[in-house]
Amino acid sequence: MSLDLSSSDSAPTPAGITLAVDCMGGDHGPGVTLSACRAFLERHPDARLVLVGRLEALAAFSHPRATVVAASEVVGMDDPVEIALRKKKDSSMRVAIQQVKDGAAQAAISAGNTGALMAIARYLLKTLEGIDRPAIAPQLPNGKGGATTVLDLGANVDCDAEDLLQFAVLGSALVSALTGNETPTVGLLNVGEEAIKGSETIKKASLLLQEAGRAGALNFHGNVEGNDIFKGTTEIVVCDGFVGNIALKATEGVASMIVDFMRQEFSRGVLSKLAAVVAYPVLKALKGRLDHRRYNGAALLGLRGLVFKSHGSADEWAFGHALDRAYDAARNNLLDRVQERIARAAPLLARSAPVPAPEAAAATHP
Amino acid sequence: MSLDLSSSDSAPTPAGITLAVDCMGGDHGPGVTLSACRAFLERHPDARLVLVGRLEALAAFSHPRATVVAASEVVGMDDPVEIALRKKKDSSMRVAIQQVKDGAAQAAISAGNTGALMAIARYLLKTLEGIDRPAIAPQLPNGKGGATTVLDLGANVDCDAEDLLQFAVLGSALVSALTGNETPTVGLLNVGEEAIKGSETIKKASLLLQEAGRAGALNFHGNVEGNDIFKGTTEIVVCDGFVGNIALKATEGVASMIVDFMRQEFSRGVLSKLAAVVAYPVLKALKGRLDHRRYNGAALLGLRGLVFKSHGSADEWAFGHALDRAYDAARNNLLDRVQERIARAAPLLARSAPVPAPEAAAATHP
Repeated sequence: MSLDLSSSDSAPTPAGITLAVDCMGGDHGPGVTLSACRAFLERHPDARLVLVGRLEALAAFSHPRATVVAASEVVGMDDPVEIALRKKKDSSMRVAIQQVKDGAAQAAISAGNTGALMAIARYLLKTLEGIDRPAIAPQLPNGKGGATTVLDLGANVDCDAEDLLQFAVLGSALVSALTGNETPTVGLLNVGEEAIKGSETIKKASLLLQEAGRAGALNFHGNVEGNDIFKGTTEIVVCDGFVGNIALKATEGVASMIVDFMRQEFSRGVLSKLAAVVAYPVLKALKGRLDHRRYNGAALLGLRGLVFKSHGSADEWAFGHALDRAYDAARNNLLDRVQERIARAAPLLARSAPVPAPEAAAATHP
Repeated sequence: MSLDLSSSDSAPTPAGITLAVDCMGGDHGPGVTLSACRAFLERHPDARLVLVGRLEALAAFSHPRATVVAASEVVGMDDPVEIALRKKKDSSMRVAIQQVKDGAAQAAISAGNTGALMAIARYLLKTLEGIDRPAIAPQLPNGKGGATTVLDLGANVDCDAEDLLQFAVLGSALVSALTGNETPTVGLLNVGEEAIKGSETIKKASLLLQEAGRAGALNFHGNVEGNDIFKGTTEIVVCDGFVGNIALKATEGVASMIVDFMRQEFSRGVLSKLAAVVAYPVLKALKGRLDHRRYNGAALLGLRGLVFKSHGSADEWAFGHALDRAYDAARNNLLDRVQERIARAAPLLARSAPVPAPEAAAATHP
């Protein structure tokens, strides 16, 4: 598996990595996050954790490489972004991200409300020069046994061609940091492989990406279709957040329908139940291969600091994967890689912006 | 099953239905279409077929309720739309649609190239007054054991809010014709259920649909998410063709990945192979429930005539379903229902158009 470099000896080994963990976030809170943190510290002897949350919830946790930082509030899973951002200024989510801003941690991880996490991260950390909109980049299992990184998955509903180019640059940096492959392939999600297909925005993005490919800023494969995400045709698939969110949820929907059908069929009558018993090890292996928990931990990219989002329903094992992903990203200098790639693509990012200077472009972007 | 009204006695029984069949279209051509036609004629004693294609390919077919109409050309699955439309004027696809235009048949069915079929149908039949863009509306199996009608699935990549309202009206007419339910529920595909979510186009469409709901033109449920297609939350899901195409292909991708995983897991070692044998009847039942062939036959809606698109890879059974769907739609007066619903929604369709008169709006639409 090329994705798990956490125990690789070939990666550069900077001084120990420190992660800030929002221990209160997610459906389960400290009940899940703390045990995942303990296991994480055992896996990574060079890692330190800053545990953020209510003191009474974290009091029982003690580890020589963990410190606790108090935060009196918790962002609820249903809290509107405005409440999370403007009212709960001492939330565990916000204090965890503040650790990254202050240099006390290289990355923050939260299983809380995605919209709030993105808003607070963007407010505290700001976007990198050359990037107008940060993106959320999860990894989805593919038929090749690896994972496809898809961005944006929901942060930006109205994107233009320049945004899609920025996502391609950000995704390339992420995948190269996580896998060591310096030229991961990028596909542009479209309704057909031909360059003439798609909306006006997509056609323009296709031209920008081709140019970025020629300039060596990224490895552009061309257009890909919805099924290519799961075929693993390219390592990165770029799309706007609206399309990405709907594609992701539609696939979750069809996968859970298939699982429900299987459950129903295998419990229909005595013979089927017997078949289920015989087939159990095979079905278990199948479940393992489809298990999205293995790919838990989506990067928020384009910010002046690393933030990772765990699924809200993550269990200890899944939350541990999100911690590992953040650790790998920090250890492999994701932030430097992102900045390096933005610098390489800078002439294109600037050229395609409405005004020449990238600063001004970022400021005037809708 | 509420979807198959073909053998229902409660439906109105107009004088026999005649369908025009493009016998040359699809991956298999007459080898599949002709045997499906024969079985169809046996199922429907009041039906007649006009078989369109090369005479030598159709010569062997003889049935008292079938006539053959010659067409010397065939639209290839990879033919560009321009070639199909401008060069192949005697194609079986075009001649089949011409039968509908001439009143010789109530609906045309083709398994050929989707882009060409839409372009030729639009060119020959024209759109209905009040409709700017025809849509493709397939049905996808859902977890409730029925099907969700999704439109548009690929005909229109750049849609505005008014287009989405028109799709909702068209989809409602289709579902009421096929199921007898006069108030099928409509969901607007979005990144969240809350009305404030989504792109500017979607937010505007949501307002238009709410208004259409209040006016009694359709039964608007509200926003739905990608997974709701497969939950069967609403009977109709409305989206632009770009999002629809990508969501459909992504779900096909994940479903075929799951099937591949199952095949691999069940053939891994002797015990797994044994498990596969025991589990076979269950897996077969599962396959049947997921079988998209049962839902073959997508309507092209918004035209002044009925056209149905079969999947290109359809086998005899699947093509027969497309024929049945077209038969049901014709038998239940889909075209009248569409016009009725457009009339009911006309004030809204007109009001939201850039110029007051619907004719002018249709003419000036980009």
